Amino acid sequence: MPWRERDLLAAFARKTPGPAVAVGPGDDCAVVSVPPSLVLTTDLMAEGTDFLPSHPLRSVGWKSVMISASDIAAMGASPLFFLVAAQIPPGMEEDRVLELTAGMEAAAEAVGASLVGGDLSAGPSLLLVSAGAGAPPPGGPVLRSTARAGDLVFVTGPLGGSILGRHLTFRARVEEGRFLASFASAMMDISDGLSGDLVHIADASSLDFTVSAAAVPVHPDAVALSERTGRSPLHHALHDGEDFELLFTLPPDRLDDFLEASRDRGFAFRRIGRMTPKGSGRFLETEEGPRPWRILSHEHRG
Amino acid sequence: MPWRERDLLAAFARKTPGPAVAVGPGDDCAVVSVPPSLVLTTDLMAEGTDFLPSHPLRSVGWKSVMISASDIAAMGASPLFFLVAAQIPPGMEEDRVLELTAGMEAAAEAVGASLVGGDLSAGPSLLLVSAGAGAPPPGGPVLRSTARAGDLVFVTGPLGGSILGRHLTFRARVEEGRFLASFASAMMDISDGLSGDLVHIADASSLDFTVSAAAVPVHPDAVALSERTGRSPLHHALHDGEDFELLFTLPPDRLDDFLEASRDRGFAFRRIGRMTPKGSGRFLETEEGPRPWRILSHEHRG
Repeated sequence: MPWRERDLLAAFARKTPGPAVAVGPGDDCAVVSVPPSLVLTTDLMAEGTDFLPSHPLRSVGWKSVMISASDIAAMGASPLFFLVAAQIPPGMEEDRVLELTAGMEAAAEAVGASLVGGDLSAGPSLLLVSAGAGAPPPGGPVLRSTARAGDLVFVTGPLGGSILGRHLTFRARVEEGRFLASFASAMMDISDGLSGDLVHIADASSLDFTVSAAAVPVHPDAVALSERTGRSPLHHALHDGEDFELLFTLPPDRLDDFLEASRDRGFAFRRIGRMTPKGSGRFLETEEGPRPWRILSHEHRG
Repeated sequence: MPWRERDLLAAFARKTPGPAVAVGPGDDCAVVSVPPSLVLTTDLMAEGTDFLPSHPLRSVGWKSVMISASDIAAMGASPLFFLVAAQIPPGMEEDRVLELTAGMEAAAEAVGASLVGGDLSAGPSLLLVSAGAGAPPPGGPVLRSTARAGDLVFVTGPLGGSILGRHLTFRARVEEGRFLASFASAMMDISDGLSGDLVHIADASSLDFTVSAAAVPVHPDAVALSERTGRSPLHHALHDGEDFELLFTLPPDRLDDFLEASRDRGFAFRRIGRMTPKGSGRFLETEEGPRPWRILSHEHRG
């Protein structure tokens, strides 16, 4: 049976919301209890660009919420609430739409948040937009613009080749982000690719940087993908998008405390470089010496 | 020059946000100060369904924010923050995209709120999704489900024919909603059309109702449209969508206070009927006697 807006909103409304949700889906707005400060984000995902018709709908729904959860994690914040607006082809079977919404709900639950509302609209192709709200960490959110010269550059995990599947099934680094909020001087999530995203932190903080090629953690998927593309695994680690690991900077005087606390929590973050004063240049250090930093990463472009 | 995501996000970020906005567009999330409770909503608008390529982009941007502002008004709440995610055709001129964002910003400002973030993505046709957060009224948000038998049914203004232009240029009934929060037992905004939306309140409140055909305020646009369609102006007032007036119920013992306070504020709300116990039936009273209530209003449907 094809989907109907009202039936699906009713299905949304049947879910048990958390204690902070006074009114869930089904009215003009959801009504929620919130802390004095919130982080807010929104992300758009379209068929053909961010996922394919062949991808499992549960994973597509999961990704739509996790992308926003990742933005929240990148502030060191904790996800609280999500809304999802979806454009759905008119003939799609209701069961398939319910796979999609099940994925959204599973993702919200996996990061300790509630899916509190949505909007469904018929249209030519599947498109999902999530909006998320989160609680900042006690010391305040971690921005992109607050790195300093001399800070060390880290990533939370191996990079590259996410297109082989991880871009749909990843789990936002919420625990890591909350932990890092006590240490990091600047942070963001890697969505466009390391090469472009590190430039975002550098530009926002008015700094340059050097990254050691040998230190960049390469995901096995980047190795697998390189066998198909003929590019190096490092190329994929530097330039592929949608890793959704966190990229952060650490004041060097916090290094010992940070390493000890990370070990205690079982985190294996990877140090890849250092922020330098503006004017120092942006370099990838290789065995053959420093090379100018190149951005080959993804950007939606007109 | 065609638009580029980064340039436009920078343009967003140049705007001066309100005092409650600690971090505006440009980081992974916006950071805002909020009251202890919030209402949250999201709405999707697509070219071809909700607007046409011939419509002015400033109005399209205005509408994208006002639709969510109207949901917030329908709870008796005050809009605080909006996020807008947009899918934009890759070749669109940057000046035209800036018309769109100018309309969003004007709408947010018109309802006393801030546009704090967004997401821009290239895609085949223009599509906008707004998410809004608002502060509930002191006595708590007004729901759809809390009307009682005997309550009087009102609308805030004349209905029908919004397709002639008002559906793009309307101003959400935020002032009215805040005022009504002290009186209304149930409320929603008229987006699908009166005939369907009154059924939403009745179903949510487990009630029936009677509406007087002669009392339904008919907009001059409904008259103008009826000359083209051959349908009656009343038909358009009952069944057209996107009026974005508020539909609300009032306990009869509040009527005198309500009328006096409305007069003092210069509001001219229109009483159109009465909620009745479930089982009484749903009727439109006409000169020829009661007729069964028909729903011919809009619903996105699979």
